[in-house]
Amino acid sequence: MTHFSSALAIAEAIRSGKKSAVSTIQETLNTLRTQDNDIRCVTHIFADKALQQAHKIDAMRQAGQTLPPLAGVPFGVKDLFDIAGHVTTAGSIVLRNTPPAQKDAAIVQRLKAAGAIPVATLNMDEFAYGFATVNAHYGTTHNPHDLARMAGGSSGGSAAAVAAGFLPFALGSDTNGSIRIPASLCGVWGIKPTFGRLPRAGAYPFSASLDVVGSFASSLDDLITTFYVMDGSIPAPEPAVDTLRISRLGGWFASNLSPTLVAALNRVCASLKNSSTVDLPEVASARAASFLITAAEGGNLHLPRLRKQAEEYDPATRDRLIAGALLPSSTYLQAQRFRNWFRQKIHEIFQKTDVLIAPTVMGEAPLLDEPTIMVDGKLVSARANLGLFTQPLSLPGLPVLCLPLKNTGSLPLGLQLVAAPGQEAALFSVARALKKSGLAGCVPLPEKEMA
Amino acid sequence: MTHFSSALAIAEAIRSGKKSAVSTIQETLNTLRTQDNDIRCVTHIFADKALQQAHKIDAMRQAGQTLPPLAGVPFGVKDLFDIAGHVTTAGSIVLRNTPPAQKDAAIVQRLKAAGAIPVATLNMDEFAYGFATVNAHYGTTHNPHDLARMAGGSSGGSAAAVAAGFLPFALGSDTNGSIRIPASLCGVWGIKPTFGRLPRAGAYPFSASLDVVGSFASSLDDLITTFYVMDGSIPAPEPAVDTLRISRLGGWFASNLSPTLVAALNRVCASLKNSSTVDLPEVASARAASFLITAAEGGNLHLPRLRKQAEEYDPATRDRLIAGALLPSSTYLQAQRFRNWFRQKIHEIFQKTDVLIAPTVMGEAPLLDEPTIMVDGKLVSARANLGLFTQPLSLPGLPVLCLPLKNTGSLPLGLQLVAAPGQEAALFSVARALKKSGLAGCVPLPEKEMA
Repeated sequence: MTHFSSALAIAEAIRSGKKSAVSTIQETLNTLRTQDNDIRCVTHIFADKALQQAHKIDAMRQAGQTLPPLAGVPFGVKDLFDIAGHVTTAGSIVLRNTPPAQKDAAIVQRLKAAGAIPVATLNMDEFAYGFATVNAHYGTTHNPHDLARMAGGSSGGSAAAVAAGFLPFALGSDTNGSIRIPASLCGVWGIKPTFGRLPRAGAYPFSASLDVVGSFASSLDDLITTFYVMDGSIPAPEPAVDTLRISRLGGWFASNLSPTLVAALNRVCASLKNSSTVDLPEVASARAASFLITAAEGGNLHLPRLRKQAEEYDPATRDRLIAGALLPSSTYLQAQRFRNWFRQKIHEIFQKTDVLIAPTVMGEAPLLDEPTIMVDGKLVSARANLGLFTQPLSLPGLPVLCLPLKNTGSLPLGLQLVAAPGQEAALFSVARALKKSGLAGCVPLPEKEMA
Repeated sequence: MTHFSSALAIAEAIRSGKKSAVSTIQETLNTLRTQDNDIRCVTHIFADKALQQAHKIDAMRQAGQTLPPLAGVPFGVKDLFDIAGHVTTAGSIVLRNTPPAQKDAAIVQRLKAAGAIPVATLNMDEFAYGFATVNAHYGTTHNPHDLARMAGGSSGGSAAAVAAGFLPFALGSDTNGSIRIPASLCGVWGIKPTFGRLPRAGAYPFSASLDVVGSFASSLDDLITTFYVMDGSIPAPEPAVDTLRISRLGGWFASNLSPTLVAALNRVCASLKNSSTVDLPEVASARAASFLITAAEGGNLHLPRLRKQAEEYDPATRDRLIAGALLPSSTYLQAQRFRNWFRQKIHEIFQKTDVLIAPTVMGEAPLLDEPTIMVDGKLVSARANLGLFTQPLSLPGLPVLCLPLKNTGSLPLGLQLVAAPGQEAALFSVARALKKSGLAGCVPLPEKEMA
């Protein structure tokens, strides 16, 4: 498979007869089987089912039927999406004896109805609780841009599979940054849609009041096309970028950044002719509230299993889940009360702004054997702190588009474009402008990594 | 003041010039000052303000202006409703140094706009946490029908003031049964409207996801009239009682009842030509969930004050609030998850039924110096267990009309009429039928208690 073949190009090749769906899928399966030894993003391959679906598409074409828009396009899913007949493990061995899923997750159904073919499950932090994709059961996913570095998490396998060029797009989920962080560290496009916009049915839950499902893609067009397929809606008109009020987030979101990232942010803002800065109030509390709500809701979800199978959990998630279940109810309630207040403040800000620009993480991917980052002058755990800029934006449920920056050095850096709930189209407009100006786009892997 | 003068009769006497508003209010103030020594339902009297409002009404009449529907009608409020200029204590000394309320509570505003005059605050369990109106700071409210017995709580002062004939109606609040239990024990009409229907602004909170404000009245017409004033809506058409599908709640709601109450329930069901029985699922869990949510939300609300002023709390509420704040978050979340399930089951039941009939408490008011009741063969605390039949119905937020039974002996007994959310009009229809058939209505006090 060519690096960065886009989903739309693959579909067009199949539609026009340049290539069959079966040969496309066979090539993808071959890539996943032979090229993943160093990256380790794949956890399960659906070879037979994927080829069956490809055969049907080729038969449809031979019968002269119109092919759906994504016919024959392979994609991967974070290992927490149900695939009918397969046990959904959510990155854990705890669920290994649960019955196989009876049907596909809702967004997988919609993508399959558009002709796309799920070919693999992809690695993640156990039960989505982490920013590292360092998994005690299924191994560590390595960053395709530098195998010594983190891919980010918890949807790290999905981001790495797209960054490596194995798949044109992949599904992930984001509770505190689990799409945005790996998208940034691996240098691919990612979207965390508005909370509640895409159906979560069949995605193994983590934190009911924060979980969002979304995707990664190597091309912006693919990201937008697959978003609307998953949303089940007709693409909304995109406001012209020069009609949008765009501001940069200051304060909390302007600290702890690498100099390279600051320079890239400045170039992006200059390109958008943006000079205004907006500060969100009480960002530290917003981040804490997101942490606490996640811990409490995740802890409650897992409590019955923790009572019986605690020793089977990844130690990195187990103790946090137990602590979360035991948080005082007053702490949880106060976090939810703060959330209501914060949401109102955010909505006031969006009365005067359309799109906010913020960093995703503070710099490049941390080294796997030195998993720390510097925050306010202190070395802290990367796994716990990579969400510094993503968690506060999870709390109010805002849509965020993650944009890979170009020309920032050898390792990827990313930005968050943030809009009011439901305003994904504004994000797409700004992202297109930045792609057009050459500031955003997937960065090819270094030569030595090329297949 | 005559016993059981109705609000509508008082308003009519003032409108027609038979009596002035000022003399009406003066008589009421005199009653509250001189007749409450044994009952102890009054905690504060607004003499000057009430008389000022009465003077205005008399002036309006003299000027030939049309009087609003409740012009000159005195009423009382549970001591947790804001009255502008007065410190809202919520039955506690903890709040005594907080600033006076800047405006009246929302439903007080609506009643005042209709001409009604708030004359007093009425006793309650501290912070509404109890079913007894036994208050360490403001004393115990006694049942007007038998001073040796409980008035019920937490809105016991309001129920007692109406039962004693001091006031035609009074406001209360109900989280787990705090309107329904005192209405039943004191033998007056009461309404706990649909959760969320009446505005709670200016009512000191207890449990955000359960609190409902409502009222007590000595006449059904007054209860209905004041309900629509508080609701700010035009009275809805009442479905004819013979078109309503009425069922009796069985199982949990048919156990632990006094023989007198069973006989009265049978008479009521016979009068409504009702023979069907409905069982709610998992009632014990519904009651437990209501308990737990109340404890957690109340605990969180009070936690900052408990950290500073714990010794000022009534011991009967303090320890429960602290325990509530420390409940594990998983317990709270599981209770809320159960609530969602239970609400769906309840809505399924209301597909086949319009009105459910249930007891309010198991029998007559317990003795104050023997505050126990028998549940499943065991003597248990009345204060904690009088909510056996009210708490499960709080959880799904259903509207409940409390109906005082007639001819059941020397002490009052009450029933709950329960409908689907928003269907108060169906309750009014059934209540009118039972009043007409002589089975329901306020019972006069025994001779010795008459003023």
